[in-house]
Amino acid sequence: MLLNFRLHPRLKEDSHPLGWLDRSYLLLSRNALFPWFILVPETKETEFHELEPIVQAELLDQINLLARFVATEYPIDKMNIGMIGNIVSQLHVHLVGRNHRDSCWPGVVWGYDGFKPYPPDEVERTVDRLIAAIPGRFRAWRAEATIRQK
Amino acid sequence: MLLNFRLHPRLKEDSHPLGWLDRSYLLLSRNALFPWFILVPETKETEFHELEPIVQAELLDQINLLARFVATEYPIDKMNIGMIGNIVSQLHVHLVGRNHRDSCWPGVVWGYDGFKPYPPDEVERTVDRLIAAIPGRFRAWRAEATIRQK
Repeated sequence: MLLNFRLHPRLKEDSHPLGWLDRSYLLLSRNALFPWFILVPETKETEFHELEPIVQAELLDQINLLARFVATEYPIDKMNIGMIGNIVSQLHVHLVGRNHRDSCWPGVVWGYDGFKPYPPDEVERTVDRLIAAIPGRFRAWRAEATIRQK
Repeated sequence: MLLNFRLHPRLKEDSHPLGWLDRSYLLLSRNALFPWFILVPETKETEFHELEPIVQAELLDQINLLARFVATEYPIDKMNIGMIGNIVSQLHVHLVGRNHRDSCWPGVVWGYDGFKPYPPDEVERTVDRLIAAIPGRFRAWRAEATIRQK
């Protein structure tokens, strides 16, 4: 475990933990209506513009990598990227793949109350796709969990 | 005029033109309920992750500069940054200063229908503050307009 920071309880509650992209937590929103990923960098800053340049550059690189993953793996028409933090101040970045036929197009997903849970195994399949698409830099939470149990 | 690209009509309609930050258009949303700025970089790409690294780095620098301006000049509690583009595909970045007492806290501003127009002269005062805070890199639209009229 490289990380010594904790996820905000609300982020934990609203998402499935996937693993880490470099040193950032990678989460999947529990709402299966959209391919909705959340990056949580290891920092105590709450504003993107207050991050040190090196941390900002790392996060930017992760955003690019993840956005390309979402654009490649899902049938999306537009990527929505948001850094909001009005409810959860811990810095986190939303990457949401949007499609003209999704349930709240062209509105934003934040504040939208439609919800669909992920079917069994779909979260694990997402982890498998991340391992295949981002080898070396994405580490699955389940692998670390196995190590911890040993 | 350095720029050879055009603003999408909807961006034009919904904002006051302030000027340019380096080579990006800088707009102010017509909604005075929030300090809501919009950066429009000179590119034909519609997705942030598809920008060339140099264009992305320039835009990132502009985001930092503008976010620090908003955080310094307005009584904000949180910065909201969004790249959405579901309605207007031309790449643009929203920077919105948010306050616990603003009219849609903690919801996001996108899709919110509250509206207040700017009082006379307030847009010009914003331009003056930008000129003072970001000398050299921010150029006011009004100055260019004067040059064009000569």
